[in-house]
Amino acid sequence: MNEDARIARWTAGWTASKHVILGPGDDCALVSPPPRGHVAVLKTDSVFENVHFSRRDPARSVGRKALARAVSDFAASGALPIACLVAVGTPGGRKPDPYTDHVMRGLSSAAHSWNIGLAGGETTRSKALCLTVSLYGWVKQNRHVSRSGAAPGDSLFVTGKLGGSRKGHHLKFTPRLAEGQWLAEQHIPSAMMDLSDGLGKDLPRLAAASNVSFLLRAQTLPRRAGCSVAQAVNDGEDYELLFAVPFKNCQRLLEDWPFKTKLTWIGGIIPRRHKPIARGVKLRGYDQFESF
Amino acid sequence: MNEDARIARWTAGWTASKHVILGPGDDCALVSPPPRGHVAVLKTDSVFENVHFSRRDPARSVGRKALARAVSDFAASGALPIACLVAVGTPGGRKPDPYTDHVMRGLSSAAHSWNIGLAGGETTRSKALCLTVSLYGWVKQNRHVSRSGAAPGDSLFVTGKLGGSRKGHHLKFTPRLAEGQWLAEQHIPSAMMDLSDGLGKDLPRLAAASNVSFLLRAQTLPRRAGCSVAQAVNDGEDYELLFAVPFKNCQRLLEDWPFKTKLTWIGGIIPRRHKPIARGVKLRGYDQFESF
Repeated sequence: MNEDARIARWTAGWTASKHVILGPGDDCALVSPPPRGHVAVLKTDSVFENVHFSRRDPARSVGRKALARAVSDFAASGALPIACLVAVGTPGGRKPDPYTDHVMRGLSSAAHSWNIGLAGGETTRSKALCLTVSLYGWVKQNRHVSRSGAAPGDSLFVTGKLGGSRKGHHLKFTPRLAEGQWLAEQHIPSAMMDLSDGLGKDLPRLAAASNVSFLLRAQTLPRRAGCSVAQAVNDGEDYELLFAVPFKNCQRLLEDWPFKTKLTWIGGIIPRRHKPIARGVKLRGYDQFESF
Repeated sequence: MNEDARIARWTAGWTASKHVILGPGDDCALVSPPPRGHVAVLKTDSVFENVHFSRRDPARSVGRKALARAVSDFAASGALPIACLVAVGTPGGRKPDPYTDHVMRGLSSAAHSWNIGLAGGETTRSKALCLTVSLYGWVKQNRHVSRSGAAPGDSLFVTGKLGGSRKGHHLKFTPRLAEGQWLAEQHIPSAMMDLSDGLGKDLPRLAAASNVSFLLRAQTLPRRAGCSVAQAVNDGEDYELLFAVPFKNCQRLLEDWPFKTKLTWIGGIIPRRHKPIARGVKLRGYDQFESF
């Protein structure tokens, strides 16, 4: 198995993108600059064997997940993903690793569904399979939503349902790309993020970034079937959007929301001098490996 | 050791960049779009423990190398690097790994020297230390140099000296950023790439991308002290520029070259119907893991 042949097969699975001016095969890739009035958006995200998945998981779903995690971050920023770079650590040396091949196929078919082009990549020998996807795209200036704009009095909302993701959702979730872009375009949220580590870890992060505290109505959280409140708060890997909405925008949000995706009011932002209020549920601290 | 604290220490080592509008700590990073008349440039590159380095190598040099390899690709494209994303797989769980800390310090101080900002990153638990650096930047439209423009009659040049990189050069090399940008700006090369796998592997790649063949004057290659011709051709990790120059640009190149960096004529491009000519040296085939 010649490595050039393997790379050729991996790259052949990708749909050509009009935004990739010079793609795989050169020292660097050239991609379209953001349109006028837009800024560039970047994100890198890793998925490692024995950390984020095991070989018992369907390979194509693992490849899809590797890209979907970064796409979910773009959703939370209200940004449009355009092209990606894929760094693969894979076992086997010259011997082909069919699992990796299927992972790559899942990745490219997911990229096709989100109109994301392949700009370039890198392969390395590695004991465990590891994938690092870096995503490039753009967002309108002043339409980007960060984690840091929430203010006391804002309401908190989440999309979809929470908890129990390990039963399968973590490999099948749909990043809330259209929802995030709509929210940003409508200028509705004051702060937004995607729930990758669970509300119990991510809500304190949003609050810390915004220098505020929060009240969480844990008992009425939207839960996946068979999940307890504690699971909805702490399981993680929901990949739903969490966002704060100033009072003046709440009515517009609820009246104009054009998606079938469930939308739930889950609490509010309070001044920083108060401790977080989340009755009936323990929020796990956050001390794990994470993105920065 | 709290992971947030570790990330805070890693990110604190970076010099702020005016081009990073929203840096580490949010779901995505926002960076300046390319100036008018420029396109965006992307590259990802990995450095893995036990593949590209061992823990006997100085940690700071390893961190520098992780970035310098991608910078060298930017040099070969004539592009300007602006901001990077750093994905780190590191052992130890909650226990700090001082080697990784030093690697990250080497990376940030190298970034400072090339004016590259930190846009964001990612940490994952991993048995071996692995780093994937993704680089974003820009190049003037129509000033980018690819591998595919060489034509019969063009002369071949390399910067610097070749061979023996494993004795230390591979951890200390200076990417030919200014040289590459000058060559591109002056519209001198018809094709260019950086020598990461050695002339013996990389020159055939440039020829294949350009659909041509080549004549290599191996006996007079610029060699590092103590290196044989075979080593100069096959050792790899030179990170020098290899470029083809149409006859009409050769005089301008030799007269105007404004750098102290050595510049050597090493052969020429011939039509594809001829086999490569490289008397007195065997070119190794290329069947290793590589970038795409």
